[in-house]
Amino acid sequence: MTANLERMRQQMNHIGGSLRPHVKTAKSANVLAHIFEDKNTAKICVSTIREAEYFSEAGYTDIMYAVAIAPNKLDAIVRLMQTGTNLTIVLDNIETAQIVAAHGKQHKALFNVFIELDVDGHRSGVTPTDPALLEIARFIDKTEGIKLAGVMTHAGDSYNCTSIQGIRVMAEQERARSVAAAESIRQAGITCPDVSVGSTPTATYLESAEGITEIRAGVFIFQDLFQAGINVCQESDIALSVLATVIGHQKSKNWVITDAGWMAMSRDRGTQAQSKDQGYGLVCGINGEILIDDLIVVSANQEHGIIAKRDGTALDLSQFPIGSKVRILPNHACSTAAQYSKYTIIENNQCIGLWPRIRGW
Amino acid sequence: MTANLERMRQQMNHIGGSLRPHVKTAKSANVLAHIFEDKNTAKICVSTIREAEYFSEAGYTDIMYAVAIAPNKLDAIVRLMQTGTNLTIVLDNIETAQIVAAHGKQHKALFNVFIELDVDGHRSGVTPTDPALLEIARFIDKTEGIKLAGVMTHAGDSYNCTSIQGIRVMAEQERARSVAAAESIRQAGITCPDVSVGSTPTATYLESAEGITEIRAGVFIFQDLFQAGINVCQESDIALSVLATVIGHQKSKNWVITDAGWMAMSRDRGTQAQSKDQGYGLVCGINGEILIDDLIVVSANQEHGIIAKRDGTALDLSQFPIGSKVRILPNHACSTAAQYSKYTIIENNQCIGLWPRIRGW
Repeated sequence: MTANLERMRQQMNHIGGSLRPHVKTAKSANVLAHIFEDKNTAKICVSTIREAEYFSEAGYTDIMYAVAIAPNKLDAIVRLMQTGTNLTIVLDNIETAQIVAAHGKQHKALFNVFIELDVDGHRSGVTPTDPALLEIARFIDKTEGIKLAGVMTHAGDSYNCTSIQGIRVMAEQERARSVAAAESIRQAGITCPDVSVGSTPTATYLESAEGITEIRAGVFIFQDLFQAGINVCQESDIALSVLATVIGHQKSKNWVITDAGWMAMSRDRGTQAQSKDQGYGLVCGINGEILIDDLIVVSANQEHGIIAKRDGTALDLSQFPIGSKVRILPNHACSTAAQYSKYTIIENNQCIGLWPRIRGW
Repeated sequence: MTANLERMRQQMNHIGGSLRPHVKTAKSANVLAHIFEDKNTAKICVSTIREAEYFSEAGYTDIMYAVAIAPNKLDAIVRLMQTGTNLTIVLDNIETAQIVAAHGKQHKALFNVFIELDVDGHRSGVTPTDPALLEIARFIDKTEGIKLAGVMTHAGDSYNCTSIQGIRVMAEQERARSVAAAESIRQAGITCPDVSVGSTPTATYLESAEGITEIRAGVFIFQDLFQAGINVCQESDIALSVLATVIGHQKSKNWVITDAGWMAMSRDRGTQAQSKDQGYGLVCGINGEILIDDLIVVSANQEHGIIAKRDGTALDLSQFPIGSKVRILPNHACSTAAQYSKYTIIENNQCIGLWPRIRGW
């Protein structure tokens, strides 16, 4: 984890970028304490009100809630702003802007709002060339109760890239389209302070942060098999694993049965469509070393994992006696970590602590 | 939920079966209180030590821990037995039996053990005709620290059935093979008190419980789209849903964006291989009524769900204004419920309570 953080720090220095880590992966103040030396200058990004509340209580005061706001969450946003948190919110349509402004006016609050951009057809957001972008910006600019923080986007389609060069192209597209959107707002005479972009793949391979004021990424903290599958990291960089115990064998099938099923790994099959399908996870030895090529969790029930070679060929089951332990690297750090209420911290093959993490909304 | 419980009660009465509900789906003492009038005569089945501890504390004293035991869990089992809980454990090989017996002898405990059977090639267990079955039974019979509770199996392959008749065949196979295994042990002069079988599909369609002393099932309590997909229930029987709020639209794509992504639904795509792929869930109105045929969560990110028609055809987005709410039926009740720490209980479209649930191991 420390190496992953250092690598991203170097990348930010290299491209002149400023990191706003997304805490939806780690959901733990202990992890954040390893990223930021000073909470007062830290800025973070959250995916739920629960995360905003937890990290605000933990002393983080510059928070972007990066999921388009819904009306029923505005009261919670106001409460957090009243505690002194600089909490920014996100929207991508005029209807929401009207609701937010009305709520601000009614409750004497000033909502600081990012307009979400769609730079790759991935999900939410208004495209940079859509007339709605300026319409929303003008509405925010002239209306009480709401002000413009800037534009933001998430190049989620970078997850579908199959080469580093492909990710570089996506990263530059994310940057250029976001900067262009901000410029079009500025040319309309409206102040647009921030341009916020990010995803772990594009943050890793962006070559210049020109015009970008902040970069958001979260998975890079732990990395996972999905990121390794798109060359964003190596398997050896993956800092999160599930410790499993062998509970049985099916000798005729070359299966090892463990107590780590999908409840332990999550149901995430993110590598299913990649060239190397990792099943429910890649099996390592107790210290995280890869023991046998292609040894994966081929199938999982709620509390049972079935370990076998990817091609089903013979396996020396005596290497995995009843009660022995393996570590399993996850497809997706966000979903696997979410199955747990704490992290067991390992340094030099020793447990040196337990770090709590939160869940819920 | 009440109707689902009543339906299973009637089925048990009809076939002369005795239910040992699997609590791995609900993980809530409040749910169990609706199944059992008297905790003292209740018997339950758990999938983790955490569940065993929680339900033991809640007053349930007859508990089967239905995942093959690992040596590192025996201390916890002993502690629970010392509180007066009749806790039975499961194994399927002689190595584990030896470890369990040695632990029992060392700690002056008597482990009450089920031998797990493999009746359908699904996962764990010894096949009823494997000589290992009698070898394990004889070892348990003659050894201190361990005694035989019976045989147990889970016909997990019933989940792959495509017709009710297919499930009936699987149910009878599960019953007949388990009874045959118990008989072969008894013919060797060894007492084999219990024959425990079960899965929601086979429990639902078993036609006679002859020779079976108990039937385990868990998902039937809530039901889900997977079970509906194999004709174990109707979509209208599904008692668990996720309440989501509309946060945006992509008009050109006929998409409604909500705040219920895979963190809210789980990553479970259990219906993916069924004839009717339900995406990440089937979309209903606020009171659980199906609004529009084929309206599903077609895609999900961590905190974003994308709702569209299955075939991508036009959708009247004005039916789903910003801030409006929908209910989403899950693919798999076990995995979706696991994303939450409580249930909101709805009766006559009113919230009448919050029921806590547990997680972890």
